[in-house]
Amino acid sequence: MGSMSEDQTPTYVDSGSGFNRDMNYIPDRILAGERSADPLDDRFPSGSKDSPREVQRWPAQPGRYRLIAAKACPWANRTIIVRSLLGLDDAISLGLPGPTHDKRSWTFDLDEGGRDPVLGYERLQEAYFARYPDYPRGITVPAIVDVPTKAVVTNDFPQITHDLFFEWRDHHRPDAPDLWPDHLREEMEEVMKRVFTEVNNGVYRCGFAGSQESYDAAYDRLWVALDWLEERLTDRRYLMGDAITEADVRLFTTLARFDPVYHGHFKCNRNKLTEMPALWGYARDLFQTPGFGETIDFDQIKRHYYVVHTDVNPTGIVPQGPELESWHTPHGRERL
Amino acid sequence: MGSMSEDQTPTYVDSGSGFNRDMNYIPDRILAGERSADPLDDRFPSGSKDSPREVQRWPAQPGRYRLIAAKACPWANRTIIVRSLLGLDDAISLGLPGPTHDKRSWTFDLDEGGRDPVLGYERLQEAYFARYPDYPRGITVPAIVDVPTKAVVTNDFPQITHDLFFEWRDHHRPDAPDLWPDHLREEMEEVMKRVFTEVNNGVYRCGFAGSQESYDAAYDRLWVALDWLEERLTDRRYLMGDAITEADVRLFTTLARFDPVYHGHFKCNRNKLTEMPALWGYARDLFQTPGFGETIDFDQIKRHYYVVHTDVNPTGIVPQGPELESWHTPHGRERL
Repeated sequence: MGSMSEDQTPTYVDSGSGFNRDMNYIPDRILAGERSADPLDDRFPSGSKDSPREVQRWPAQPGRYRLIAAKACPWANRTIIVRSLLGLDDAISLGLPGPTHDKRSWTFDLDEGGRDPVLGYERLQEAYFARYPDYPRGITVPAIVDVPTKAVVTNDFPQITHDLFFEWRDHHRPDAPDLWPDHLREEMEEVMKRVFTEVNNGVYRCGFAGSQESYDAAYDRLWVALDWLEERLTDRRYLMGDAITEADVRLFTTLARFDPVYHGHFKCNRNKLTEMPALWGYARDLFQTPGFGETIDFDQIKRHYYVVHTDVNPTGIVPQGPELESWHTPHGRERL
Repeated sequence: MGSMSEDQTPTYVDSGSGFNRDMNYIPDRILAGERSADPLDDRFPSGSKDSPREVQRWPAQPGRYRLIAAKACPWANRTIIVRSLLGLDDAISLGLPGPTHDKRSWTFDLDEGGRDPVLGYERLQEAYFARYPDYPRGITVPAIVDVPTKAVVTNDFPQITHDLFFEWRDHHRPDAPDLWPDHLREEMEEVMKRVFTEVNNGVYRCGFAGSQESYDAAYDRLWVALDWLEERLTDRRYLMGDAITEADVRLFTTLARFDPVYHGHFKCNRNKLTEMPALWGYARDLFQTPGFGETIDFDQIKRHYYVVHTDVNPTGIVPQGPELESWHTPHGRERL
């Protein structure tokens, strides 16, 4: 998410303790006129836990919203992939902040004049303040912004990709994949939960550990999970079997960052992704699938982590490695 | 060498510029009673360049000197290997400072009571001050200390291993290897020079670069050299052919630290050593040769770099990886 709160020198490592992700997001949702059925959706309308606010329901109207998603950020990367897989490019526009941000906010420094061409903002922070002038939490991506009011609607990243699937169905491309197959849903929720706590977040738990003890525990926990995934993917082409689901999107954005960033910068270095045959084949298989690889910008990814986390990498120097051409090599996973 | 000067917060990265190693050492030498012939030895008696001091000649007497060499340090590691290969264990005793040091000096924190059992010192610094009360440079290992006076004789690391070979011949074991074969000497000097400037020191040039520009240049330079070595070792078992020489010792101590430290900590991460078949086979071949592998303490190596270089790794957290069991796997280099 790459959170940044105002008036604070950014620190990521909490000295002496472990890393805990703030999971309190703006819980508003964008819903279909006639709500699509999601039998397991018991979260609605409460939104993210501990939210003090009443959840507002926004209508799913093509052309109304702008997804703000930095290519560097793995949580934002998920939304770019799902939007592409579902063919929502015309329904929801996309704004792309640059890979590094200052202490106040993600910025639109890659856009002409340093402003998002639709919202006119220099900083994503402005969209948060347009909604809540006293917004106290991190300015995170992904965020969906209501273009008419230029105010943020939600930054609740797992809910965003869920709703792009269930609530925007009328606007999907005809051959959009079934990212949330009903018959696999319960197992998929379990897999996604484990992938989130142990892998997506597990790499951060290693990298932002504030003590050797918390790092060691995080490292062990991460590799237990990666070994489980390696085994699971040895005889399954995708996490849930023969077809790509939301679970694959969620794992993929972490795997794409593994060797370029997490291996060295976050000290997740038992081995490289390239040294785990099933996971490496799986990652390349997805990378070479339309909707995945073209959303990966390794330069932005590396610059983000190595430049932003000054308390992990004070020199700000971005490594030139690793060699990444091998992402394009044959993966041989079609046989599974 | 792991230099430390007094009253100074240790900094390794020189912000905004490249890394330059201070090569000014105490140039004294320990010489055989009847000096062994070294036809290419044109350095003597001038010692290291720019030295303001007159070089003193000390006699090669078994039992008189103590080699102080931290296992963590690659430059010190060379001397431990050469001493072992030549069978000088009884002639020259060995003191082993711990892997981390405070801002004043390497310390004998691994020894009982925190003191070297022969010299009685807590800090190597004391041996330097016993010789020069105002010693202004870094307190480095390896260092040879004269036990009767407890004063440092020399810390000139390339000269030390040279002299262990040429000046201590009378005390070598009968089957000691010819680490400096006459007929290869000129080519070997060229190879060692390139290995030193491009690899031994090249990894430090990457890791202590004070700007992206100097890092990028250092990285490119390092990989040109590693590709040259990979090619050279594809059809040669050792750097100079069929037998181990001083050149192999000098390359080995850098290779042993490559994946555990230089790959991540120094951002030498185009690929791991394990991804270069000839170099990786060569490194394991040496590791499995008596005199090499048993001098490698991966825990000490990792702790040294990750704990001491606080301006590169401010958290001081030591990575658990990489997996290192594979150093013991068959290398297949006997066929070369």
